[in-house]
Amino acid sequence: MQPLMNPRSVAVIGASERSARSARALRNLTAIGFQGDIYPINPKYEEVLGHRCYPSVAATPSPPDLVILAIPAASVPEVLAEAHEAGAKAALVLAAGFGEAGEEGRARHQALTALAAKGMLICGPNCYGVLNMHARAGSWGGELPTPFLPGNVALLSQSGGTCGLITNPLASQRKVGFSYVVSCGNQAGVAVEDYLNYLVEDPNTEVIAGFVEGFRQPKRLPGIAERAKALHKPIVLLKIGRSPEARQNALTHTGSLAGDAEIMDALLRQHGYIQVHSLDDLNETIALLAVGKDQPAGWRLGVFSGSGGEVGRVSDAAQDAGLRFPPLSGSTIRDIEAALPDFASPQNPLDGTGAIYDYPEAFPRVAEALLREPNIDVMAFNLTALQPHGSGRAPQRGFAAHLANAMAGRPRRGLVVAYGSLTLGALDTETVDVLREAGIPYLESAEKGLRAIAGLARWQEWLKVPFPSQRERVGEGRLGTASGILPFLEAKRLLEEFGIPVVPSRLARSVAEAVEAANELGYPAVLKIESPDVLHKTDAGGVRLGCASAEAVRDAYDGIIASVNAHAPSARIDGVLVQPMAGAGVEFILGVKHDPLVGPAVVAGLGGIFAEVLKDVSLRIPPFDEREAEDMIEELRGKALLRGARGRPPADVKALTQAIVRLGELAVALEGQLAALDVNPLLVLPEGQGVLALDALLQLR
Amino acid sequence: MQPLMNPRSVAVIGASERSARSARALRNLTAIGFQGDIYPINPKYEEVLGHRCYPSVAATPSPPDLVILAIPAASVPEVLAEAHEAGAKAALVLAAGFGEAGEEGRARHQALTALAAKGMLICGPNCYGVLNMHARAGSWGGELPTPFLPGNVALLSQSGGTCGLITNPLASQRKVGFSYVVSCGNQAGVAVEDYLNYLVEDPNTEVIAGFVEGFRQPKRLPGIAERAKALHKPIVLLKIGRSPEARQNALTHTGSLAGDAEIMDALLRQHGYIQVHSLDDLNETIALLAVGKDQPAGWRLGVFSGSGGEVGRVSDAAQDAGLRFPPLSGSTIRDIEAALPDFASPQNPLDGTGAIYDYPEAFPRVAEALLREPNIDVMAFNLTALQPHGSGRAPQRGFAAHLANAMAGRPRRGLVVAYGSLTLGALDTETVDVLREAGIPYLESAEKGLRAIAGLARWQEWLKVPFPSQRERVGEGRLGTASGILPFLEAKRLLEEFGIPVVPSRLARSVAEAVEAANELGYPAVLKIESPDVLHKTDAGGVRLGCASAEAVRDAYDGIIASVNAHAPSARIDGVLVQPMAGAGVEFILGVKHDPLVGPAVVAGLGGIFAEVLKDVSLRIPPFDEREAEDMIEELRGKALLRGARGRPPADVKALTQAIVRLGELAVALEGQLAALDVNPLLVLPEGQGVLALDALLQLR
Repeated sequence: MQPLMNPRSVAVIGASERSARSARALRNLTAIGFQGDIYPINPKYEEVLGHRCYPSVAATPSPPDLVILAIPAASVPEVLAEAHEAGAKAALVLAAGFGEAGEEGRARHQALTALAAKGMLICGPNCYGVLNMHARAGSWGGELPTPFLPGNVALLSQSGGTCGLITNPLASQRKVGFSYVVSCGNQAGVAVEDYLNYLVEDPNTEVIAGFVEGFRQPKRLPGIAERAKALHKPIVLLKIGRSPEARQNALTHTGSLAGDAEIMDALLRQHGYIQVHSLDDLNETIALLAVGKDQPAGWRLGVFSGSGGEVGRVSDAAQDAGLRFPPLSGSTIRDIEAALPDFASPQNPLDGTGAIYDYPEAFPRVAEALLREPNIDVMAFNLTALQPHGSGRAPQRGFAAHLANAMAGRPRRGLVVAYGSLTLGALDTETVDVLREAGIPYLESAEKGLRAIAGLARWQEWLKVPFPSQRERVGEGRLGTASGILPFLEAKRLLEEFGIPVVPSRLARSVAEAVEAANELGYPAVLKIESPDVLHKTDAGGVRLGCASAEAVRDAYDGIIASVNAHAPSARIDGVLVQPMAGAGVEFILGVKHDPLVGPAVVAGLGGIFAEVLKDVSLRIPPFDEREAEDMIEELRGKALLRGARGRPPADVKALTQAIVRLGELAVALEGQLAALDVNPLLVLPEGQGVLALDALLQLR
Repeated sequence: MQPLMNPRSVAVIGASERSARSARALRNLTAIGFQGDIYPINPKYEEVLGHRCYPSVAATPSPPDLVILAIPAASVPEVLAEAHEAGAKAALVLAAGFGEAGEEGRARHQALTALAAKGMLICGPNCYGVLNMHARAGSWGGELPTPFLPGNVALLSQSGGTCGLITNPLASQRKVGFSYVVSCGNQAGVAVEDYLNYLVEDPNTEVIAGFVEGFRQPKRLPGIAERAKALHKPIVLLKIGRSPEARQNALTHTGSLAGDAEIMDALLRQHGYIQVHSLDDLNETIALLAVGKDQPAGWRLGVFSGSGGEVGRVSDAAQDAGLRFPPLSGSTIRDIEAALPDFASPQNPLDGTGAIYDYPEAFPRVAEALLREPNIDVMAFNLTALQPHGSGRAPQRGFAAHLANAMAGRPRRGLVVAYGSLTLGALDTETVDVLREAGIPYLESAEKGLRAIAGLARWQEWLKVPFPSQRERVGEGRLGTASGILPFLEAKRLLEEFGIPVVPSRLARSVAEAVEAANELGYPAVLKIESPDVLHKTDAGGVRLGCASAEAVRDAYDGIIASVNAHAPSARIDGVLVQPMAGAGVEFILGVKHDPLVGPAVVAGLGGIFAEVLKDVSLRIPPFDEREAEDMIEELRGKALLRGARGRPPADVKALTQAIVRLGELAVALEGQLAALDVNPLLVLPEGQGVLALDALLQLR
């Protein structure tokens, strides 16, 4: 990646003072202080913007590390091939007009992909490029970040125009600096995952922020997360694409319950990527992480404000963000009582009232007491950093200085932040700078600030969880050359191989075999049609429950065959399955959905109305461990049913957890072959009695 | 309200150049250009800040309309009583230390309440007061809004410190002006509802914005809304207090399903109050309403941006806000194709690509085409109003000028907005001003902007709905002097009086009576204990279903009496209810909860796990009409069950709707007496067959 991320020499193809695009790329190189060789390429000129100009890449004194293509899309494939021939190792393609622009565009895109396959590092097309802010190297086709402030945050954005919206406010208002700014466009060559992989290892980068429209190789994300975890580098992502996309038309039920966006979301969440849902939140989270990522956070929040209104608002915001207000301990209460007048109540969140303005010693005394409070994980001071106006008053500057003092002497670690009641954008940087020097990130608005803190707390929790180790394979999952819908008994064998119990079943091909099977398995019996052509067995009259006698089994067998023949005359009938009636339990549904990029995803939900009416399911990408499976159950709105709601006995949640993990193992083992799988219903029996799959539909590719 | 909202003379009690609070109040009067008489009151001085000072309110040349009390809380009651004696009609109490400060504070609060009862208009305590921005009158204890910009928005905030956070950014960045700024504090006298009532009628006020911690007289809110609707004045509220409050411990089931916050929320939503959940969103909504409230909005959104990244983000934001992107019509597509290069796709949301910067005619041509598009209700142009930096470029100024031109010639009405991709706070006001002049509100961030638009669209829909007319009373609801738990047959009579069918029931006091009742009502029969002391009948063994014969009824009767005697030996047993078994239907739960301030609230939800496990209920304040009842059903997550999910026939939603409306009528008729009511279950029978209440628990006060 070096020729792209830290090039020693750069050629600008199509260089001309009259082409705004090429001139900007050239001027940017000078402006950032690039120390390597700069080669404008244009047969028409001897010199461009003070640099000696060359007729072709081949004519440069030595092959450039990187070429910038400031030419229209139509010429790009040919010119880029020549540059590759001439020894250029990396390229930045600025123009649009590739994959998104009809058939010709797609052909151009494929030409780039082919060059990338030969080893050329292609950034773009339709992007601004790569800025290495510390080395002052790279290539940039847009306006430079203003101010140009090197720092510890790497920004990766497919969209070029979005980069400045992130760097400029953060650098100017909160002195957040950047290690890299990368606009990677349509990823014809180097993919988002390649950049992430590089940035995680970059020594100047401590925080990675991404604005991503689509991943190309999401299977690499867990591995990247593992390295990021080892190096304690958070990755915060604004991933768009949650809006209505056609959900895959799937044969299986769970298939329709999980869209592509949900699968991507599960993958990211599971692997510690911090997700945000707006540019505003992205910037706020970056501001927090850039200063505070290594300070221990948590869910117990303390708030101190001079405004009763703020104290009320922040309570709602904390609830929405999942943070809570612990009660203060006795000694803190006494310290606060000593520092504030009677009409202030010593509680959390704490309203210091106008007293913090009227009595100069009140704020520092209270602040010190709160920084000592052991029940608080994250202490947030409400200082709205309004720029001084008419009156010239800026009381928050005094408070910031007090806080900086208090931080020097505070007895314990733990995240401390300051925040404004709302987003002002234009902050009093004098206040913000003093706080930042003291290790206190300044956040805008309670709502955004607390969401960012919750994201940090969740990430720090994830850091403590061991990376899911390679589990011992519980099953082999050999399938031979089968394809399409697997016969039930085959699916049963496979589930059992992976440790998921399935109801005893016999396939009967005649009335006599059915009665024999029922005699053996016990009454009452259940009979079900077995046919690869009948997926909705009940609708086809293919299921009979509670057959209490041999007589009833005979009736049921004939009835099923007749119904199915009437309902689906051309269906191939393989026989009738005979099973014993199962006992009482909670109906669950487990499934596997295959995503073309991510691979298998495990879907879990309560059966019946929960899955069908409420779409109440949770999702994980296997392999995962029991902790994740427990979380999957915890995420279900109807989870109380498993705990024994409505007079039922508590269900065997432990066995369910194991079954979910094992279904994940099965999905991994069969990844190449499995198209979809439904275990529906999986009966969760009372505690200590396990689970029992009553039906399964397994579709191979 | 005139002496408070537009005083002709103001006295400042406790005036002194050494008291910051009184000096600020005095200086503010001069600073705003107050033309009335100003009387500093202090026996120690002849003159304060250039005004002649008086020893007491009684000594002023004429009784002042308003007195400002810039003195500590402890002296307030006595001094205020004197001022009232001396003829002052209104008062502003700045100090804290009343209701929130222990027993002494509460006594002071009561002293204020008593004076208010005598007709004095008391603003506060613990507040900044009232600023009449157009008349340049009133009284203000805090820093004045900067800039001081009279306009069409009235701001009402209990918290004083919050006022500046709303007025200052809006006035300075977006030229939003204010008619009134009111900080009303603890409402010892004049309540939030009084101010709202006044502001709705104020001719200078077109939009009302409130930051409210608690309503004192919420029953007045529907009436205020009715006037606001007639005058087309939107009221936007940030109401805090959603965080965990102890939910009322209620005897009835529905009681525990609806907290105080939910009841308040229902009342506001039902009556067209626009609710927001952060200061950021409050400001954004004010910015929209101040310019665009009378422009027709709607749910079909058009977006035009120069950034592909923005187009992706705004799609997610629109989905979250409930807005949708209609397809463009053929002629618009042709116009766009003619104006943009091939690589731009003519779709909605529209990415104009870099072409809008490269081709000067592209933006205006596309903008005009989009403003003509009939499928679009609200057209949003993405122009991030960055202040020009280093390069001095500010392309959005050119775009703003184009838009202003296009607006002059546009063929149809409809809301047009411009918005930035994220919150910058410090905007390029040159851009914003041009847009505003052209009737285009400028909004910050897609997420906040689209939420504000959705709020406006919902409000405009509400404007079209007739105010619920006084319905003909369907029942009398006479209850006599009953109290406590009403006997079932009494509750049945009452429900039936209001048109809610209840299962036929007889009270049997012996086995023989039970058999006689069953013979008459038909088999199978249901038997249930009737006792004011047994509320959970099933738990006490007090219910037997499906008694198929006289024999079974006998068994059931004896069994019930024995079980209940064993389970609750001291329970008074009034007999056993005999009912016929009901047919199949969807179990629903309907209830009434009484809120001490709001009055009765009707709670509706699907029975079983939906209510018990998922808390899936909706809420309205009666009286309401069938449209609201339909919305209540629509809000339920499990509503698909009523439409015939899982192989059931569609349920009689029409009859359910009527039953909900009628329960509302009953709740209104019995308001003085009803503590709580559960109809659980209400069986919703298949279409055309109505509903049937199977049980009811009615508790009187």
